[in-house]
Amino acid sequence: MRAKEIKSEIRIIGIDDSPFKKGKKQKVLVIGAVFRGGKWLEGVLSTKVTLDGLDATNKIANMINKSKHKGQLQIIMINGIAVAGFNVIDIKKLYEKTGLPVIVLMRKKPKMNEIKKALKHFKDKQKRLNIIEKAGDIYPCGKVYFQCYGIKNKLAEKVIKISSTHSLIPEPIRVAHMIGSGVILGESKGRV
Amino acid sequence: MRAKEIKSEIRIIGIDDSPFKKGKKQKVLVIGAVFRGGKWLEGVLSTKVTLDGLDATNKIANMINKSKHKGQLQIIMINGIAVAGFNVIDIKKLYEKTGLPVIVLMRKKPKMNEIKKALKHFKDKQKRLNIIEKAGDIYPCGKVYFQCYGIKNKLAEKVIKISSTHSLIPEPIRVAHMIGSGVILGESKGRV
Repeated sequence: MRAKEIKSEIRIIGIDDSPFKKGKKQKVLVIGAVFRGGKWLEGVLSTKVTLDGLDATNKIANMINKSKHKGQLQIIMINGIAVAGFNVIDIKKLYEKTGLPVIVLMRKKPKMNEIKKALKHFKDKQKRLNIIEKAGDIYPCGKVYFQCYGIKNKLAEKVIKISSTHSLIPEPIRVAHMIGSGVILGESKGRV
Repeated sequence: MRAKEIKSEIRIIGIDDSPFKKGKKQKVLVIGAVFRGGKWLEGVLSTKVTLDGLDATNKIANMINKSKHKGQLQIIMINGIAVAGFNVIDIKKLYEKTGLPVIVLMRKKPKMNEIKKALKHFKDKQKRLNIIEKAGDIYPCGKVYFQCYGIKNKLAEKVIKISSTHSLIPEPIRVAHMIGSGVILGESKGRV
């Protein structure tokens, strides 16, 4: 992606999961909000992934690839590297499967020692850690942090800034979060 | 509601139902999209109502009354007088229960003889017809039509125009429709 392609109405899909009950084996609703930059919603996609599973990368890639919006989409934004517990997203694979650059947005800088601790009960913890680690360097941008793949970090920063029109969080992610929690809980709650 | 209260960022809740399979007795997801005028989404509410039941008025009133957005909301917009099949909404009762004026938006002018035909298999068809008929006069506004309660039709027209920022349909209703169909079908489809 080149700088001149980043217009204020760049089509972004923002992805976030929904609230779920801990412990119980279940499918968790994941929302994709198709936005024109930080301006308005053009479409809503959804899929379901396994709590603490490893199917999120494929499920999200399929959700995007089969969408009527695919041809216009220019970038994927995810709220954190994992959905539905520790269903970690392989952003290189997601880029390869969709052909779209990926930005992982984080409100706080993740602490690797805490992640390792949380993963210790997983039999395949090393596999999950590898996916997290290969997501690459973490960059600051205003009050948030991000990782990216298929796009240079300076351009990713520009996309984050262009789309953060109503809060510190890019609008496609903020809205995906509200939809997921509003549908599951009856009212959207909590910060992204 | 007075004319001076209708600002471009007036807080509106747009309500629409979600796709469902005909015939099967079921609960149908209803979405409330809390908007600042036609500009941006502030919250998502949801409830479930019975297909062809008569619980929509109470369910929607409760969804609104218990919301943290209640204090700021100034108007309710519904996509048509019924949700979930023929679960007709009593707009006078909805106004009385919430204290908020109600606008019913319609893409086409409804034909009473077709409605009567569709209702003929309902044992309580007269009750449902009464609710529909007491919703009052139908006014045109651009290419859409509306009914209203608790607000004068000229002011309702102003609210519809202010909030129709990206299509012929007010943004709160357009987005509620996209959320409902995106969550149920996997991708938002169909016109409002």
